[in-house]
Order: sequence, then structure tokens, then C-alpha cells
Amino acid sequence: MNPIQVGLLGIGTVGSGTFKVLQRNQQEILRRAGRGIEITMVADLDVERARSIVGEGVQVVNDARQVIANPAIDIVVELIGGYGIAKALVLEAIAAGKHVVTANKALLAVHGSEIFAAARAKGVTVAFEAAVAGGIPIIKALREGLTANRIEWIAGIINGTTNFILSEMRDKGLDFDVVLKEAQRLGYAEADPTFDIEGVDAAHKATLMSALAFGIPVQFDKAHVEGITKLSATDIRYAEQLGYRIKLLGITKRREGGIELRVHPTLIPAKRLIANVEGAMNAVVVQGDAVGTTLYYGKGAGSEPTASAVVADLVDITRLATADPDHRVPHLAFQPDALADTPILPIEQVQTAFYLRLRVADEAGVLSRITTILAENDISIDAVLQRESAEGEKQTDLIILTHETVEGRMRAALASMQALSSVLAPIVSLRKEELA
Amino acid sequence: MNPIQVGLLGIGTVGSGTFKVLQRNQQEILRRAGRGIEITMVADLDVERARSIVGEGVQVVNDARQVIANPAIDIVVELIGGYGIAKALVLEAIAAGKHVVTANKALLAVHGSEIFAAARAKGVTVAFEAAVAGGIPIIKALREGLTANRIEWIAGIINGTTNFILSEMRDKGLDFDVVLKEAQRLGYAEADPTFDIEGVDAAHKATLMSALAFGIPVQFDKAHVEGITKLSATDIRYAEQLGYRIKLLGITKRREGGIELRVHPTLIPAKRLIANVEGAMNAVVVQGDAVGTTLYYGKGAGSEPTASAVVADLVDITRLATADPDHRVPHLAFQPDALADTPILPIEQVQTAFYLRLRVADEAGVLSRITTILAENDISIDAVLQRESAEGEKQTDLIILTHETVEGRMRAALASMQALSSVLAPIVSLRKEELA
Repeated sequence: MNPIQVGLLGIGTVGSGTFKVLQRNQQEILRRAGRGIEITMVADLDVERARSIVGEGVQVVNDARQVIANPAIDIVVELIGGYGIAKALVLEAIAAGKHVVTANKALLAVHGSEIFAAARAKGVTVAFEAAVAGGIPIIKALREGLTANRIEWIAGIINGTTNFILSEMRDKGLDFDVVLKEAQRLGYAEADPTFDIEGVDAAHKATLMSALAFGIPVQFDKAHVEGITKLSATDIRYAEQLGYRIKLLGITKRREGGIELRVHPTLIPAKRLIANVEGAMNAVVVQGDAVGTTLYYGKGAGSEPTASAVVADLVDITRLATADPDHRVPHLAFQPDALADTPILPIEQVQTAFYLRLRVADEAGVLSRITTILAENDISIDAVLQRESAEGEKQTDLIILTHETVEGRMRAALASMQALSSVLAPIVSLRKEELA
Repeated sequence: MNPIQVGLLGIGTVGSGTFKVLQRNQQEILRRAGRGIEITMVADLDVERARSIVGEGVQVVNDARQVIANPAIDIVVELIGGYGIAKALVLEAIAAGKHVVTANKALLAVHGSEIFAAARAKGVTVAFEAAVAGGIPIIKALREGLTANRIEWIAGIINGTTNFILSEMRDKGLDFDVVLKEAQRLGYAEADPTFDIEGVDAAHKATLMSALAFGIPVQFDKAHVEGITKLSATDIRYAEQLGYRIKLLGITKRREGGIELRVHPTLIPAKRLIANVEGAMNAVVVQGDAVGTTLYYGKGAGSEPTASAVVADLVDITRLATADPDHRVPHLAFQPDALADTPILPIEQVQTAFYLRLRVADEAGVLSRITTILAENDISIDAVLQRESAEGEKQTDLIILTHETVEGRMRAALASMQALSSVLAPIVSLRKEELA
């Protein structure tokens, strides 16, 4: 059979990795797929650079629409990113009857429903293994490997930049701003790191996993998103003393009445495997009712790790290119007519345990006033750490770990505690998950 | 579409788990697969117990051949185990045109080539996700998730019994025999634990992963297999002092000239994620040239975790039941006509680093004589730990970590060292892997 022909839209980091991997492992991939897979056309605004990567023999154009219009192209790989032109091009490629492979989590988390519906109507596939956790085959695990399970929850370190920053903050006791600069210098953070450090990138990925796990549409707008910019080295240190590490987690969880979907810094027990995932690595924990806890670990970004996922999608599509679309795995794991309208819960209804740090006056009765407020809000205490105040010091840090409670209650309690005259600074509150 | 009909051969631990999971998650699975999956017939020698598990509405027989002969059955699930009757039944089921799902690693590691060839000839699938690492979708990761990669090596904790025993030995400083009895009492080890503790079970699984990773036939007879029965608490302790943990690993590695396939206790750096996999849990590390290091973690045994893998296979088959067999993923990841005859290397040619413990006379010149022998055999030393001998003691432990060498050289060196008069007891040698 003649090779399947692939057109690349955009040949930056991931695109050039995809080209290199397909070339280098051509034989290995052919032996697996049973059919050659060749990039025969590339569109990039920088035609010269593109040409220098792919050499002769591959058609290079500066207009993506020429790739889509080429009847010889079977699969279009979209690696442009963002919601704008990428969306138009993906929809046009689908309309032209091309299968699409994309690493664009932002696009799918926001416009996934529209895109998947268009693909279904046209009988083509939109594959996106590279959109979550880079080279880790987590989409495949969720869509195919764990189909027996009622998924209970997923918690993942799905943004390498922030995990690198948090690892450095902990290792070296440095503050966020200092480490961010270092990360930018080393290329672990972009010049404009907003999407990473504010948790938006992780929320895009968590949104996709939420849909795959629970059979609901992608709903990025319902996600609760907090980044790591306000995190202080002090809290990382206290967490450590209490046996916890702080990680930026994307979490989605099935609850009575709805589904939680949230990204925020989270205390997790230091002994958990995922607490020991350091640097720019990614890891996702999936809890299923039959399988129990499973974990998937690897590089979440980078040229060839992401290319590994793109090529895996190309092989999957190649295998099924001539098959009846009904035989394919549904885009969002569940059959399109079997999606549920289970709501995403507002953050006030989310249930977690909490870590609180209060700067309090070192005087009699403070602890009693605070614990009374927690009790009045039905929040029970798991542990208290009160630092011995130094000679002559008139204030001290009070650390409280609570049991699981509803966020709305905690917010009420926080307001009451903050109003106490013996609470001398804004209270720090962080969510805590046992992940067991 | 009417539900796909499944017949179970054997309804013990995994069989009853499969039945329960399919019942409990019926809706969830239907929403994913797009077609119902029902166990409509069960064969078990203990008909009464089988009946008590499945209730009315499922046909229970004591003759597996009745299931195979039933034209309404689409998929046969073999959960009998072993090489004997299970082999005959699997081949008969294939001959009858049934798809087969099996958790039987022993059968496939030894007779896989024959079974897969029969399945191909008949156009049916033999699926075996449950045969390696229980509920962890590692077969799927190797066959589909990592198709872009030239796999470099795989190293896995793929036997829960021995990992439980090793974890207990380390935690409690106890010797093998004591912990084995405890493991048997707790149900983590069988009454006859030979297959587990001698490494045979792990070698079956490593053999399957070797074929999947490198596109070679299954060749269990070429695997080098060592268990944990001779491991002492002393070496676990010394390893710990040097920053290593000892795990029973199944390893398969691509080398110039051939492929390594081996199971043995292995020192690995304590800081590696896989070194922190404790108790009966499983984990597999896969190194691919594009993706880098990935790790897969979860429960490697047990009723519902294993059932999770069996049901995932059922869903895969259901999706593709009416498709052209050419569209299916090949049994061993590579197309059957693309398997390579790369040899499995004999153990003498395997390359690893070593940990050596020598009981030596505490006298001048011993270390020099030993290091000379190593140098003569071209083995370079990474670290030496010599215990200060206690007052009046005339012998001491000498621990040596070497750099990577060829096993044959180490065997020659060991023979020479053992012949020294100042070496007072059999030398302990263990292999060491950096896994990076």
C-alpha cells in the first residue's frame, strides 16, 4: 500500500520533532503500522527555515490552506496553537475530509465540542494525544486502557514549567519571582509565562481529561483556575515539616451532584509517588473503581516527547484510515450520543481539606477563638502546628490542617477569622488532597 | 445492535472480578463501547460455586468445550492458567472463530508464536492486556501509545509478591524466609510460591514485553531468570547505605548484536521513582528514543484490577469485531511479517554494573589483590565501602560497586577472587542498573 500522506501546519519545536522522529524511525514505524507514513507537505510562515528542516522532497508553502486543499494529503497535523487561525484551519481540514492530529489543548478545551461534532459529521478523526502530558499516552489510557472503570478522580502534574519552579523553590528555599527568572533563563518558562504560571495551560488539559473520564462535554469556562504566583517559600517549608509537598495539580473528581474541575497549588503527602515527580516532568494519577490507583509519568513537553504522541496518533489513524468510522474509538472516550449533562460544580461546592497559615498575636485565647470559628462552620481540625515564638516576639505563625470540608464553609470561616483583631495578616489558605 | 456475547472459561478470582465489573459498570461501558458486552456463559469445574457468583440468567457448564462450541459466543475469555488444557482450549476457541482474551502470561510467553499464528490465520484477535502488570494498560502503551519510538529498554517491577517481600525485608530488616511466611499468611504469596519467588512469573511477563518492544517472537526459553530466595537482609542494608534499593526487575534491553532478556534482583538508585514502588504494587519503566523515560504504575494483580484489563480488551474487540482484521493492532505490536530474528543474548554477554560483597580477612594487601583481579578483567570500580572492623575482629565486609561490564568478565573475576585465601566466604554479586 502506498504511504499515507501527512501535511504539517507549522514546523516549530513539535513540528520539527515530528519530522525527525518519522524520518529516523521510518522502518520501526512501518513495521508497526503496516503502511508508511510520510510528511509530504509543510506550511509555515518562515518558508526558509521550514525548508532547512525538511530538506528537498517535501513541498514547503507559506499558506496552510494549500495543504488542506491538496487532495493527496490524508492527515493534517495542526501545530500552530491558539484559538484563532488554528480553529479555522482545523475546521477547514475537517470539511475537506482530512483526519486531523493536533497538540492544541487550548483550542480543544474551549472549542472541542464544535470541532468533534464537525469531525463526526464528516466521518474523520481528530486525535490529540499530544495535547495532554506530552509523550505520556494518557489520552489512550483514559479512552481505551481504563474503559472497564467508573473513573473516580484524576489528579495530575500537567504543566512542566510550574513543576520545575515549585521543585526549585523547595530545593533551594527561593521565592517564586527569583525562580521564575531562572526558569526563563533555562528555557523552562516562556518570556510571557502567564498561561503556565496562572494555571491556564493545566486547566486546558484538566478540562480535556474531565470530558474523557466522565463522558461530559469539554467545558473550560467552568474550570476553577489558580496558579502559583502567590505561593511563598514559607508555606512550602511548613508543608514539608508536616509531611506534605506542594504541587500545582489539575484535578477532576466525580461527586454526588456534579463534577469538580479545578487547578490550584495543592498539598499532597510527601510519600505519594506523584509528590516525588520533580523538575519539568509530568505525571497523572487516575483512580478507577476496578483498577484502583494508576499513575502515568514522563516528559510533558519538548520536541520529541510531544512528537512521540503526534506520531502515535498518526499510526492509529493509519491503521483505521480505511475502516468504518463506527469502529473508531470515540473522540471523548464515550459515544457522542451518550454524553452526560452532569454539571461542573461551582468552586463553593468543591470539597477539599485545607492548610491554613495565620499570623497571630502571641496572646492567650487566640487558638480558642480560631478553633471556635472553624467549629461553628462545621470544619474539623486534623492537625495544628504552632511555632514557639522567639524571645520578645509578639506574633507567631499558626498552621492548621483541616479535614475535608466544603469550600463555601471555609470561605465563611476565613472571613470570620480574618476579622479577628489578633489575626495580623492576610490568612494563607491552600487546598490539601490525600490522593488515596 | 445486540450485545456482544462473552463466554468465561474459569471463574476464580479474575473471572468473578470480570463478571462483577461488567455488571456494575454496564452503563458506563456501554456508553464507551457503543454496544453492550455480556457474559452469557461460564464454564467451571465447580458449577455450584460458579452459579453462586453469576446467579440465574447465565448458562453455567462444567465443560469448557460447550462454551467454545456455542455459536452465540463471540469472545472466549480464558482464565484457567497454565500451559496444559488452557493451550488446547485457546487453540480450539480460535479454530471455532472466536476472539480470545486471556490473562495467561505463562501460556503466551511459551506458546505465543503458535497461538498468534493460529489467530492470524483465522482472522481473530488474541488480547492479553491482563497478562502483564494487571490493571496497568502497559500492553496498550507498548503496542499503541509508543509506536513512534525505537524502544531502548524496559525495566519493570512486574511481580507483586516479590515486591511485597522485598519491601517488608527492607522496612523491617527481616530475612527472606520470615517475610515469605508472613506474605503467605496475608495472601500476598501462594502456598506454592515457586513461580513468583524464583522469578518465573516475572520472566513470562518480561518475555511478552520484549517481543512487543523489539518486534521479535516470544522466547521465554532464552530468558535469564533469577529469583529473590538467596537475597539477604545484609545486602539490602548495604545497598541502602550506598543510596540504592534492591528490586526484582524484569529487564529487556536493545544492544549491539542482540537483545537482553533477564529477571534478577537489581540495585537501583533510591531516588528513582520506581525504587519507591512499595508493597504489592507494579511499575514499568519504558525508555523510548523520542519520548525519553515513561513510567506506568498500578496494581499488578487482584480480582478487579486484573478484570479492568480483561474488560478493556473486551471493549477493544467489541469496537473492532466487525472490522477488517487488517485494521487491528498486531498482536505483538509489529506486523507479523515484520518480526525480526535479532537474537536474545546469552547471559555471559549481558552488560550491567555490579554490587559485590566479599567477606575478607582484615589484613594488609587484600583490597589490592582484589582490585588487581578486577583490573585484569577490565572491570572498573565505581565505589568501595570497607567496614571498619570491630576491636579484635579478624574479618570484615568489603563492598564494591563496579561500572558497567560484560557478565562473562565478571564471572571470570569472581572465580579468581573466590580463589584468594583472604576471601573467607562465597562472594555475593548482584547486578546494578542506573535506569537513566
